[in-house]
Amino acid sequence: MKKAAPTPQPARGPIDHEVRDQIVTAATEHFSRYGYEKTTVSDLAKAVGFSKAYIYKFFESKQAIGEMICANCLREIEAEVMAAIAETDQPSEKLRRMFKGFTEATLRLLFRDRKLYEIAASAATERWAAVVAYEERVQALLKEILQEGRQSGDFERKTPLDETAAAIYLVMRPYFNPLLLQHSFDYTDAAPGQLSGLVLRSLSP
Amino acid sequence: MKKAAPTPQPARGPIDHEVRDQIVTAATEHFSRYGYEKTTVSDLAKAVGFSKAYIYKFFESKQAIGEMICANCLREIEAEVMAAIAETDQPSEKLRRMFKGFTEATLRLLFRDRKLYEIAASAATERWAAVVAYEERVQALLKEILQEGRQSGDFERKTPLDETAAAIYLVMRPYFNPLLLQHSFDYTDAAPGQLSGLVLRSLSP
Repeated sequence: MKKAAPTPQPARGPIDHEVRDQIVTAATEHFSRYGYEKTTVSDLAKAVGFSKAYIYKFFESKQAIGEMICANCLREIEAEVMAAIAETDQPSEKLRRMFKGFTEATLRLLFRDRKLYEIAASAATERWAAVVAYEERVQALLKEILQEGRQSGDFERKTPLDETAAAIYLVMRPYFNPLLLQHSFDYTDAAPGQLSGLVLRSLSP
Repeated sequence: MKKAAPTPQPARGPIDHEVRDQIVTAATEHFSRYGYEKTTVSDLAKAVGFSKAYIYKFFESKQAIGEMICANCLREIEAEVMAAIAETDQPSEKLRRMFKGFTEATLRLLFRDRKLYEIAASAATERWAAVVAYEERVQALLKEILQEGRQSGDFERKTPLDETAAAIYLVMRPYFNPLLLQHSFDYTDAAPGQLSGLVLRSLSP
């Protein structure tokens, strides 16, 4: 018996990717305007102009779309902070920029321009994978700057690195975790400067 | 014409005070069990065994009762922390105890034993007078400890006192403001120690 010729697989990869992006872009727009909690996949389908079934081909749930939006948003915050940090060689200035950058970018992307606060709040409360990974990357970045400052002699070396990093992370946490940040709007102008000052005094050799 | 003899005023002061205390005690019990938001003055009157009109003779609103409960609770937290601080002469140890004490007492009184979180959340969100006064007292206490440490030579004196105090207050804020504390339960064991450590390193002369 002759073997059937293999059915050629349609080149779905790149196309899937485009449709997913299209859904995510439209959903981001929709959620920023109407909120995440109240919107259903049906609402979203109507707004995007796709059938609900078609959307479910690409995302298994509303949360899966939310997670993608969340991950994109966190990547954007991070890219902004990384760019600000890359402009200086001074570890102390890097720390200042990290603190200020995360506060400002989080405020702007989650609370002002995009109003994605609701997604961010769900993500932070339920500890979505994107959030856990993001927090780990923030901690890694912090450690990297600390190590750089220890090597250059700008920062003290007596305290174990993990201890220093954990404490500074706790100081920063209220300014990039949206659940905490929403209760700190009165402080977001002055706090990054005041707290970087305190942290840098704690790091002086 | 003969002046009418002045009508003797009933000695209301102490009695009023007792009735007010009685209402506040019963309301504290009731709110801890059934929550503050959902309870009406009628519910409260029924539970306390007074008429609604009688309660209104002593408190103009549910919030007025809530404010009294809140003020009592904050005084209790403060008394506990002050007692812990009074046991040591070391400014650095005072700071450690202040941090740990506020975190533990706030957790216990607002979230565990009394479940007065709802009142505390309204109080913090709407910035009731008792909360504003409390925060000012906490800041004053912090400054006092800092000044003591500066005088004894334990703490550095280069940074302006107001700057140091404001920054340390910001570091402590997430652990005694109930709106922030509710999102930090995972950190309340380790954070006071780690953050006092960082703060003390920042204060070293």
